[in-house]
Amino acid sequence: MKPSIRIPFFETAVKNYIYGDKVLEFALAADQAAKKYDIDVIFIAPYTEIRRIAEQTRSLIILAPYMDMLRPGRGMADVLPEALKAAGAQGVVINHCERPMSLTAIKKTIDRANELDMLSFACADTIAEAKAIAQLHPDIMNPEPTELIGSGSASDMSYVLETVKVIKEIFPDIIVEQAAGITTAEQVYQFIMAGSDAAGSCSGLLNSKDPLALLDEMIHSVKKAKEDIKKQKVTG
Amino acid sequence: MKPSIRIPFFETAVKNYIYGDKVLEFALAADQAAKKYDIDVIFIAPYTEIRRIAEQTRSLIILAPYMDMLRPGRGMADVLPEALKAAGAQGVVINHCERPMSLTAIKKTIDRANELDMLSFACADTIAEAKAIAQLHPDIMNPEPTELIGSGSASDMSYVLETVKVIKEIFPDIIVEQAAGITTAEQVYQFIMAGSDAAGSCSGLLNSKDPLALLDEMIHSVKKAKEDIKKQKVTG
Amino acid sequence: MKPSIRIPFFETAVKNYIYGDKVLEFALAADQAAKKYDIDVIFIAPYTEIRRIAEQTRSLIILAPYMDMLRPGRGMADVLPEALKAAGAQGVVINHCERPMSLTAIKKTIDRANELDMLSFACADTIAEAKAIAQLHPDIMNPEPTELIGSGSASDMSYVLETVKVIKEIFPDIIVEQAAGITTAEQVYQFIMAGSDAAGSCSGLLNSKDPLALLDEMIHSVKKAKEDIKKQKVTG
Amino acid sequence: MKPSIRIPFFETAVKNYIYGDKVLEFALAADQAAKKYDIDVIFIAPYTEIRRIAEQTRSLIILAPYMDMLRPGRGMADVLPEALKAAGAQGVVINHCERPMSLTAIKKTIDRANELDMLSFACADTIAEAKAIAQLHPDIMNPEPTELIGSGSASDMSYVLETVKVIKEIFPDIIVEQAAGITTAEQVYQFIMAGSDAAGSCSGLLNSKDPLALLDEMIHSVKKAKEDIKKQKVTG
Repeated sequence: MKPSIRIPFFETAVKNYIYGDKVLEFALAADQAAKKYDIDVIFIAPYTEIRRIAEQTRSLIILAPYMDMLRPGRGMADVLPEALKAAGAQGVVINHCERPMSLTAIKKTIDRANELDMLSFACADTIAEAKAIAQLHPDIMNPEPTELIGSGSASDMSYVLETVKVIKEIFPDIIVEQAAGITTAEQVYQFIMAGSDAAGSCSGLLNSKDPLALLDEMIHSVKKAKEDIKKQKVTG
Repeated sequence: MKPSIRIPFFETAVKNYIYGDKVLEFALAADQAAKKYDIDVIFIAPYTEIRRIAEQTRSLIILAPYMDMLRPGRGMADVLPEALKAAGAQGVVINHCERPMSLTAIKKTIDRANELDMLSFACADTIAEAKAIAQLHPDIMNPEPTELIGSGSASDMSYVLETVKVIKEIFPDIIVEQAAGITTAEQVYQFIMAGSDAAGSCSGLLNSKDPLALLDEMIHSVKKAKEDIKKQKVTG
Repeated sequence: MKPSIRIPFFETAVKNYIYGDKVLEFALAADQAAKKYDIDVIFIAPYTEIRRIAEQTRSLIILAPYMDMLRPGRGMADVLPEALKAAGAQGVVINHCERPMSLTAIKKTIDRANELDMLSFACADTIAEAKAIAQLHPDIMNPEPTELIGSGSASDMSYVLETVKVIKEIFPDIIVEQAAGITTAEQVYQFIMAGSDAAGSCSGLLNSKDPLALLDEMIHSVKKAKEDIKKQKVTG
Repeated sequence: MKPSIRIPFFETAVKNYIYGDKVLEFALAADQAAKKYDIDVIFIAPYTEIRRIAEQTRSLIILAPYMDMLRPGRGMADVLPEALKAAGAQGVVINHCERPMSLTAIKKTIDRANELDMLSFACADTIAEAKAIAQLHPDIMNPEPTELIGSGSASDMSYVLETVKVIKEIFPDIIVEQAAGITTAEQVYQFIMAGSDAAGSCSGLLNSKDPLALLDEMIHSVKKAKEDIKKQKVTG
């Protein structure tokens, strides 16, 4: 059975901004905030840190940044899905704009993730691409215009609403996250209030003055949005 | 300063034949034999297992199977050299036939390894390619005709002697290992006696009936060859 | 304005089965049959033969087998869209299984083709992939299960009907061709009668005993199917 | 038998700076100057223009910008060596910095070129890479520091002398050309006088005010250098 994930959630990644013990420190802070606010947090970890983070945290859903499609056997330097799972990864990022994949590879990687009960977290650039990948039915989608990634400019609200709508028209059970360009806890709150199932931040967090404090704030914002949505429904 | 390595040594890798705890078990056995016979052992580990093996072994020289050339920053799924080193890797495999690299990338990866005091372990296919890569001055070379890899047929002795000779003519301090097609401890002994600085085995070991026993035997063969070469010198 | 294409049509390619003057000879035969039966024929030509075929034929719609997305300027060995058009190509194949493309590249190549009034002819492997690419709205789609290509086994009829249906549900104006595994003129007839907008053959033709005769027969079959469909409508 | 080439020669390419009829016009001008000054000229042409240029010129040695290693058969969009030769290409560029190749592919492409009596023209970036590729024994080498390509800054004279020397130490019969950053006819003269077997220019020519006039001047400079070297030998 695939790991369950509660909506709305928060997602973060470290890419290569930090490495080694700093990644563990960041993961521990995310884990602590996840517990404190009772919010699910997806943590995308470099291959080398997956096992250690899996062993030392409790509330994170750890994803690998990529995986190959091969099966156990040969393959020097290929990233074996079974090896990621054994190390503690519960899912995998697919088609990140910094690691674009062929359509056939995207399809096969989603199939391999399903086979191993791993979450498939697929990125898309334009709205047209989001619709294309939605047809392959990944578990989670993260549509983000490439030009915003790492830029400090958030996706505008109309893009958020439009992508959520078109993806769910194809498969209503695909979880839609918004991440590109988020730099403040306020944006996290706004995106979720606007209808995103989740919000995420990587460079916005890691390039900030106090990443650990901002991480706590952002996860707190998810909590706040969750409660405010609940209130709206009650009063609505 | 780069890690020092004593000649003759043994090298092994697991590629994707095994994963998870089986890799650790194999690494622990290699570590034990390395101590028992006082022979250096290079262990090429999947990214996900590097840290754990580094923490739980003492006598292995751990290599990553590949690395990218980027510097800390962006790069989802790219393998950062600094992250490998922080996890415990002391070197990196370059241009394995299952992960061929452009000549420019080979050069830059050797430069990055030098910058980080990591060993560069470069593979080559034909004798002509071995001479080409030797010009880039990696620390260790592993010339192996692609058609033999994973085949169970060892490089023939004339190939061994020829590659050792042509590589050392270019840079006498390049360490030359022979690995392709080795399946028995006797071959390990013969290759080192024939003039190879080291011998290695991956598929030959992992596809054998009792890999842990054969691993011990092969490392024992390195020890035996080392002693016999010393005797030859004394009596010679 | 994009070249217009009349349905049903025939499509053929030579890949690298033949080269040089043999490609011209094959193109001239296709051109002759196109005129004789008044049927449009798409001819996918190697880069080196596009100009000569364009100059010496009248009834073919010539496609390039691939193009890059760059604009005029640098780029040694990149295939410039403007250069293809100047040579006489009226369209381009996208994502052939022997040249898989990233989703982003597929999107951008369709955009570049539109910009230059070139036809976009996109290949897809599974039905899921066909639906994904349909979202990017190419002009023509050629869904063919990879395992059938070059095999001599035609797509089964249920696959034909299903792919035509799912693609047209997304954009009714996408032209859907069926090509994988076609080796006889009878199959050409059947696929078009079953609802395919076109039929194509490459290896089936070129590996046959008398390719030029079979080419004529296949184009004749398109003509026959076209007339029989017209009759059905009249009598229906 | 491979095409013969007289030293010193001139080399030019159009990359994608121009396309279609402008490429033919440029090739015709190169052909005319080649005849006028009785100097051999290598012309690297886009795939689509090779045949037309081969048919309409007499004194050019036409090279393709790249080729794949496959043999006749499948391979949509792959560039078949036999197809290039049939179209009129007499050689091929290997490992241009805008199309880097794996070491194994470089080796195999040189082998394929030899098999078809095509000239292999290999590019290298640093001096170390030039020495590496020299080991694979291409017919012609064009060592050019990547940072200079298209920049308008010529390789400095010490780089020229050093690369010629190290390459010829490995195989004295490799022809060594200098091309990076050449923008004036005077540089062409100087490089050849300094010991380069040839000089080349692409962006320097095509970005100049009057490319056809400069092309004539550059080829004239090769002629002048050739005569002055002859005089030196007589008087020396």
